[in-house]
Amino acid sequence: MQMVVIGGTAAGLSAAAKARRLDREMEINVFEATSYVSYGSCGLPYFVGGCIAQPEELVSLTVEELREKRGIVAHTRHRVLAIDREGKAVKVLALDSGRESWQRYDRLVLATGASPVMPPIPGADGPGVCTLRTVEDGIRLKQLAGKAKHVVVIGGGFIGLELSEQLALRGLEVALVEAQPRLLPAFPEKYAGMAAGELARQGVALHTGAKAAAILRDEKKQVIGLRLADGRQLPAELVVVAAGVRPNTLLARDCGLALGSTGGILVDERQQTTDPAIWACGDCVEMRHLLTQKPCWFPLGTTANKQGRVAGENAAGGQARFPGVLGSQVTKVFDLYLAATGLGLEQALSQGFEAQAVSITKSDRASYYPGGGENHLTLVFRRKDGRLLGAQGAGSATAPGRIDLLAAAITWGASVSQLGELDLVYSPPVAPVYDPILIAASQAAKQVSG
Amino acid sequence: MQMVVIGGTAAGLSAAAKARRLDREMEINVFEATSYVSYGSCGLPYFVGGCIAQPEELVSLTVEELREKRGIVAHTRHRVLAIDREGKAVKVLALDSGRESWQRYDRLVLATGASPVMPPIPGADGPGVCTLRTVEDGIRLKQLAGKAKHVVVIGGGFIGLELSEQLALRGLEVALVEAQPRLLPAFPEKYAGMAAGELARQGVALHTGAKAAAILRDEKKQVIGLRLADGRQLPAELVVVAAGVRPNTLLARDCGLALGSTGGILVDERQQTTDPAIWACGDCVEMRHLLTQKPCWFPLGTTANKQGRVAGENAAGGQARFPGVLGSQVTKVFDLYLAATGLGLEQALSQGFEAQAVSITKSDRASYYPGGGENHLTLVFRRKDGRLLGAQGAGSATAPGRIDLLAAAITWGASVSQLGELDLVYSPPVAPVYDPILIAASQAAKQVSG
Repeated sequence: MQMVVIGGTAAGLSAAAKARRLDREMEINVFEATSYVSYGSCGLPYFVGGCIAQPEELVSLTVEELREKRGIVAHTRHRVLAIDREGKAVKVLALDSGRESWQRYDRLVLATGASPVMPPIPGADGPGVCTLRTVEDGIRLKQLAGKAKHVVVIGGGFIGLELSEQLALRGLEVALVEAQPRLLPAFPEKYAGMAAGELARQGVALHTGAKAAAILRDEKKQVIGLRLADGRQLPAELVVVAAGVRPNTLLARDCGLALGSTGGILVDERQQTTDPAIWACGDCVEMRHLLTQKPCWFPLGTTANKQGRVAGENAAGGQARFPGVLGSQVTKVFDLYLAATGLGLEQALSQGFEAQAVSITKSDRASYYPGGGENHLTLVFRRKDGRLLGAQGAGSATAPGRIDLLAAAITWGASVSQLGELDLVYSPPVAPVYDPILIAASQAAKQVSG
Repeated sequence: MQMVVIGGTAAGLSAAAKARRLDREMEINVFEATSYVSYGSCGLPYFVGGCIAQPEELVSLTVEELREKRGIVAHTRHRVLAIDREGKAVKVLALDSGRESWQRYDRLVLATGASPVMPPIPGADGPGVCTLRTVEDGIRLKQLAGKAKHVVVIGGGFIGLELSEQLALRGLEVALVEAQPRLLPAFPEKYAGMAAGELARQGVALHTGAKAAAILRDEKKQVIGLRLADGRQLPAELVVVAAGVRPNTLLARDCGLALGSTGGILVDERQQTTDPAIWACGDCVEMRHLLTQKPCWFPLGTTANKQGRVAGENAAGGQARFPGVLGSQVTKVFDLYLAATGLGLEQALSQGFEAQAVSITKSDRASYYPGGGENHLTLVFRRKDGRLLGAQGAGSATAPGRIDLLAAAITWGASVSQLGELDLVYSPPVAPVYDPILIAASQAAKQVSG
């Protein structure tokens, strides 16, 4: 029995490792187009910033370790060019030798990931303009950052924010350019303002509602800045584009696998594609939203890892299922933690929920205990029965844990009244006697009709 | 309509305030034996330690504010001596004038709290030996601590630990004496060892399995030390006894109200006593355990506040109910956070559950991200179906939030497999891709039979 996995990071290697645990005999080949497998790509901004010194630290298992400890053969710098579903084989290009070959499979796992979106900005082609997705990207960006004084980051999503933080902490002058009128559309406007305030406090120049018109270069083609659509020019020797990612579905499309409405590869809850010999997982697939049961797409490391396990188990003959996602996510912008799960208010309304939201602000310690962090929490809930639909938080390091609890509440169908009755821990230096969750939930419960 | 509340801290004032919100007319009198109302007694160790400078900072509403803003008349230094249930009146002693009087009530709320247990140690009577329960206790202890160089704390519960920390941070030489062979019996032994290690690292001398035999005094009756049962002598100019508390039920017993099997006043889920005109709440009452539905007793600020609201609402004619408790609690010992909810393994077994436990240790950040705190988490679950019964955690500041999530899981009847499927947040500097909760839950799920 032969298993082939296309893509050697979170989803692909989770699939390979899980399959190996269930089937000691199967031959498992993983093809990865970059030079690195088994790395935590979410750590790349922190490698660029210097928190993590060497790219190898991001790697949990090397090619050698995968072979010796797991019996998994990982081929780095091997790009899969095509899938022959009838012949059950993939066409592989060895990037170093230029040699092409066919590799047979009985079971195939697609974990092709996602790629950065590169908006068509004049001047973007050429040196000094980067994206950040692979370890190689990270190494290149870190080198360039070491020589630059001014950097422009295009895109104010989580990666853009994390990169801005890390580059600023390295001592660069950072300008962050976001085309939308505000940061973090999935969060309440106030929280976007807090993020903007935190960036300003830390010396990052934020330009929202600012469209990148052209990357400016000198006569030697070196980047010297970015021109915005309104004519302003931002000096920069380096431009990083973090304008989102899109799923890598070319291989899947070319061999006739169905894609979902969100653009990701269509899979069932067993992560099986429309070909029963092919599973897919991670950032390349469409997923199901736990709450709405509708298709959605969240390119997140947690999701990729878990889907990978499910795909691997099923490819090895198992019957695992992936329950779906809430899109739970967190980022840290200097000292501000921002986390969210489920639906934002606007999203809930647009999805047809009779939704309402309450927002509260409260210290995460007893009011009389010094040094408590202001915590902001928004609960989105259904008006008729108070069922929790989503939650967003912004504040200190305790904020993410609350969002995790609220993710559990959404998953298990809890209402805001049930939330308000929880017996949560309290001690003056640790948490207030009424935790922000209880305060928000009891305010929300008052607005539930009936 | 006249409402009388006996006890002016968490439970009593929550009851009074809630009743006032529902009934603008009712006359509300609160009798409090100490000089302070509406204070956070859990903050007292931090007042003694100096984190909180003035006792007034612990007070959320003064007598004047209660009268002006809430229309609640609080009588400090007024002790209730007796309850005449037939005549619906309480006999009150004004401590300053020595005058006794009767106060009529239509609805009575008992929030008499709990009092420190004072073990019969020879030499304990006299100056230099304190307990810590009231603001006055705190003021006295803080004064004495200012003059002492060596202090012995008797009792290694949460208060004893918090006091040891605070007195050590003030610069005193602290010896902590615990009669049991280990600290924190509700936690796994390893966590007790971690607490002991943290105390040692911070210079607190811990003596477990050590029975206080006598408090030693010089010829001027000043405390000079504590003799242990094994003959060792610990030098001390000050001894603080933190050997637990017991419910204040004398008034209730004397007027014939029923007590529960745990020693607290018996109430129904509306916080009503066996007299329909009398409600009781807080540390003086017995409560129902959410999971076992059995009587239990947890003298906790969270519980007192919530029960107070329920008692107040019902005393004002409402129909609120208090769902019960899980005994969720947390303490911080220097840099170690310890939190627990629900049942410990031994407790679960002794209550007849076919219970099992798994314990894991994991960083609370991505493995490659520097500075993550080691987090230890224990899940106690039912073997046959994996239902979560309890959880204990020890580690960094993110530990309490996990225990809160697990309290929600217990409350909503989740199994460890359901826990393991949660979509929790992840970002390298904030949380690992598989949160400790997910790791522990999936390990536990493997041990569930069938």
